[in-house]
Formats: sequence, structure tokens, C-alpha cells
Amino acid sequence: MDTLICPKFEKAMDLINKRWVGMIVYQLLSGPQRFCTIEGSIGISGRVLSERLKELEQEGIIKRDVFPETPVRIEYSLTEKGMDLEPILKQIEIWSQHWMK
Amino acid sequence: MDTLICPKFEKAMDLINKRWVGMIVYQLLSGPQRFCTIEGSIGISGRVLSERLKELEQEGIIKRDVFPETPVRIEYSLTEKGMDLEPILKQIEIWSQHWMK
Repeated sequence: MDTLICPKFEKAMDLINKRWVGMIVYQLLSGPQRFCTIEGSIGISGRVLSERLKELEQEGIIKRDVFPETPVRIEYSLTEKGMDLEPILKQIEIWSQHWMK
Repeated sequence: MDTLICPKFEKAMDLINKRWVGMIVYQLLSGPQRFCTIEGSIGISGRVLSERLKELEQEGIIKRDVFPETPVRIEYSLTEKGMDLEPILKQIEIWSQHWMK
């Protein structure tokens, strides 16, 4: 690993660093989910979750699908870019199992 | 990957989530370093770096060695727990190379 800190790495760190981002992506690894399901499973406030989902959509990490049913159904899922975060989260999981008490 | 969010995973995320933690660990992967070297390479303020190093020492991720020379030499390095973060950072590096513009 290079000692020079690459701006791309720094940008990625900033993105993943953001509170709740890892948890939201982790949660969506199991498939598309509705707002209230994500909200319930990670104990985040609705306001903050809504903010994060918008940011992650802008970053191209998640997408928002609207199904024209009655009532309308909205689901969030990972894009390819978002799915590619899985190895990172997997490594965090391995590390936490080994080192966290 | 399980859909249930494990408290250990959450704790690990909180730790890695903290601004600058990833960068400091990344920087120390190349070996023990002095305060001013870390400070210079990641463009962090001395005050914040000092705080983070203390926290990381308390978490058992880095250690601080004092060499009784004149002037005294102090070096920071990764513990085994800290070295084990390398696969996470490596995956972040791979992801950022592929997806960050």
C-alpha cells in the first residue's frame, strides 16, 4: 500500500465516513427495501435517513424506484456501485467479530 | 451477510466512521511515524491529530513509543488490532480506484 494518500481514497473515505452510510448500505445488501423498513432496522430518525438516502442517490450508490400502485410503493436498492461496497463492509464485519468486545 | 445489524459491527463502524481515523491508520501502515510526519502527510490540524491519536491508543489500535534520546523521540505505530484494519482500507482503495472520479 502506497504511503501517498490518493485523493480518490480520501473522497471514498469521506463518503463511507459519513454517519449511517455504512449501516444503510449494509441493510440494503439483503435487497430492495422500503423507507420504514430501513428506518426500523437501524434505529435512525426519519429526517436523517431521508437526508442520507438523497445523498446516496446523488452519489449513485442507491436508487429509488417508485411503483405506481395504490398506495404508491417506493423502494430503495443498491446500484452496482453500491453493491461493490460489500467487500468493504464484509471486512469490517470480520474485523469487528475478531476485535470488538 | 446477515440482515440483522450486529452491535459489534455497529461499534466497529462508529470507530472507523470517525473523521481521520482511516487516514491515520492508512498512513501508519507504512511503519512507525512521528507526530509531525503524520500531521504533514494527511493535512490534519495538530490539535485534532493529537486527540485522535489518544483515542486510537485507548482503543488499542495504535501504540506510542517513547525513545529516551536527546531530544526525546516519540513514534506512533499500529498494534496487531490496528494492522488488522489493512484489509478494510485495501478494499476501500480498490473501490475508490474503480468508482471515484
